[in-house]
Amino acid sequence: MKPEDIAKEAKIASRVFAHLKTEAKNSVLSELKRLLSHKKDYIIEENKKDVEKARSAGLQKSIIDRLMVDEKVIKEMQKSIEDVINLPDPVGEITKTWRRPNGLLVGKMRIPIGVIFIIYESRPNVTIEAFSLCLKSGNAMILKGGSEAFFSNIALYSLIREALERESVISKGVQLVETSERDYIYRLLSLDEYIDLVIPRGGESLIRNVVEHSRIPVLKHYKGVCHIFVDESADMEMAFKVCLNAKVQKPATCNAMETLLVHESIAERFLPEMARLLRNEHVDLKGCERTRELVDDVEYAQEDDWYREYLDYILSIKIVRDMDDAIEHIRRYGSDHTDAIITRDYNNAWRFIREINSSLVIVNASTRLNDGFQLGLGAEMGISTSKLHAFGPMGLEELTVTKFIAFGDGQLRE
Amino acid sequence: MKPEDIAKEAKIASRVFAHLKTEAKNSVLSELKRLLSHKKDYIIEENKKDVEKARSAGLQKSIIDRLMVDEKVIKEMQKSIEDVINLPDPVGEITKTWRRPNGLLVGKMRIPIGVIFIIYESRPNVTIEAFSLCLKSGNAMILKGGSEAFFSNIALYSLIREALERESVISKGVQLVETSERDYIYRLLSLDEYIDLVIPRGGESLIRNVVEHSRIPVLKHYKGVCHIFVDESADMEMAFKVCLNAKVQKPATCNAMETLLVHESIAERFLPEMARLLRNEHVDLKGCERTRELVDDVEYAQEDDWYREYLDYILSIKIVRDMDDAIEHIRRYGSDHTDAIITRDYNNAWRFIREINSSLVIVNASTRLNDGFQLGLGAEMGISTSKLHAFGPMGLEELTVTKFIAFGDGQLRE
Repeated sequence: MKPEDIAKEAKIASRVFAHLKTEAKNSVLSELKRLLSHKKDYIIEENKKDVEKARSAGLQKSIIDRLMVDEKVIKEMQKSIEDVINLPDPVGEITKTWRRPNGLLVGKMRIPIGVIFIIYESRPNVTIEAFSLCLKSGNAMILKGGSEAFFSNIALYSLIREALERESVISKGVQLVETSERDYIYRLLSLDEYIDLVIPRGGESLIRNVVEHSRIPVLKHYKGVCHIFVDESADMEMAFKVCLNAKVQKPATCNAMETLLVHESIAERFLPEMARLLRNEHVDLKGCERTRELVDDVEYAQEDDWYREYLDYILSIKIVRDMDDAIEHIRRYGSDHTDAIITRDYNNAWRFIREINSSLVIVNASTRLNDGFQLGLGAEMGISTSKLHAFGPMGLEELTVTKFIAFGDGQLRE
Repeated sequence: MKPEDIAKEAKIASRVFAHLKTEAKNSVLSELKRLLSHKKDYIIEENKKDVEKARSAGLQKSIIDRLMVDEKVIKEMQKSIEDVINLPDPVGEITKTWRRPNGLLVGKMRIPIGVIFIIYESRPNVTIEAFSLCLKSGNAMILKGGSEAFFSNIALYSLIREALERESVISKGVQLVETSERDYIYRLLSLDEYIDLVIPRGGESLIRNVVEHSRIPVLKHYKGVCHIFVDESADMEMAFKVCLNAKVQKPATCNAMETLLVHESIAERFLPEMARLLRNEHVDLKGCERTRELVDDVEYAQEDDWYREYLDYILSIKIVRDMDDAIEHIRRYGSDHTDAIITRDYNNAWRFIREINSSLVIVNASTRLNDGFQLGLGAEMGISTSKLHAFGPMGLEELTVTKFIAFGDGQLRE
């Protein structure tokens, strides 16, 4: 089908999706969950074609790992569907109301965005997660998965269509793009009369390419250069645990700590032990001159290193003079993703919360908590570091917008 | 100055604007209000140059009216500043919080958007209104007024700078673009590393041109084809008053009614008297065949008329079979701006509220109420009909975004 046709079909179906009852949406999700058990052999079989193709093409092991669908991955998919079933339906929620002097009751009500175009890379799970979140929030969608997951995504998509059809929901509300032709994708990115939002999920080059070619608003997330600032009043035991967790619990994620900032008056007591703990976990350390005076064998951190998202067992460390210096560093080198302070000082805690405008600003906890599940959104579609519309993890609420509503008894404009 | 330079200056100053104390912002606004009295002769003098130029260029009277600044307009500007001073500061507001099972307190806090580029047409008032709202919401701004208001805007801008400097606030946070060269504007619209949002305020061609050339997100408002549906259970007296108000109180505005939909079972009793009342106010009527059977001398409404935003003393009337028919009509021909139902039926009221996804959906009141002041936002920067980020009148809240915040006592990712 032509790009125009699939976008138009999605747009027409989006009107139906927008007004689906909660029970109907949950029935489709339950049915999909059931089908994933029922047809798991088929899914795993199709996935094997992708995995073999990837192996013979010599793709990296990490890509093949992400690509693989086995019984465990299918259980995870089912768990993620179950989670979304259990989340409250955001559509129709009245988020606030206020009464005007003339008696008019004004409010805001959540409605779906419309048609969301999701472009993602290798993990086939995203097909299921994106579908669940978009459906529950009343949005129609166009899915474009990675070409490495070609067979897996077609198989999962056939289950999605089957689930929709079994529950008598128009299956055209979910479109799968099977080609990876650039011109086809670019054409879709120009169809702002049919598509309301684009969410690219993947590496920086994918995202930049989408932004470059889109006439449709894009929710983007470039990178996470996350900081922890250990203030002079920090509880040192807490700081050790939080910093260790933020760096090594899963270093390849966007919310892992990349730079540790330490107040100079605590550095001498804090840094040598912190360095020892990190090295126990095989973390390579880079640092400023003063760090190198306190800790042996620390590589000198170049100007470039402060901008780096290592996504690896590497950490940059800088000793700062005070709060001002820490805030200035984060503003200059940070990426508005996730930044934390460890402190016992009331004023510093609040100043950090107010003056750092990252998508999540934390006092006394790990940066790894910037995640839809951890923050209690239930599930998410990635973490936005663009401020407009959504900033931070994009849960069901962030896949809706609000309209104004007003209940009157004959109010006029005077 | 080059586009890059003014955008960069605004970006740097935006950090200061973002953290201005409420009192500092209000002091600047008070000072500006004072200067408007103190230097009103200068403003009126400069404005005369624009008005004379417009007259000798033979511009329309309506444009010259909008352009003119006299003592009354200066008073209105001062009133609008006073209104913004009295609005609560949105920056730093914590809009919600929730506690996670691990004890982490999570919330959302309002922060400014950053740098807003406002492009507007003839009314010099917008210079003052846009400045007041952007400053109060902590945003730096780039202002580009209409070339017809060249001298007026430079004069008003000089007062803004003076007010900022007198209160020791960095005046580079407000930039005025003095040229109307296309390439200069297009270059600004490409600088997404410095400018966070573009708000064009003006006619459809201005807005389309901005959307076409911008790499920065645009809050747009194309047109308002607003409907009132008079349901079969409507209170007829209320319906007469509301429809009359929605059509004639100020027909040239985007929230004026353009199409009246009448339930067939009430049409015979309702329409002849409604037509008489509208014609008393010099409204020309167009209508469907059935309307023409009930009311004399109604011009036949062509397919195109249902899409029209007349902005004038003209109204299209259609008799519909039922709610379904009315909703279908609004979905097909509407512009997602403002739509109202007049009804005494509980189910129909709620169904209309739920199923019409316009920026304001009203029960039993005039469409003319879709306005920041009328809805209690205090002031506004126009009405967005794009759904992302803001949908409806853009008040102070809509000029902010939220970041996530979290207060912990050592929470880790398990």
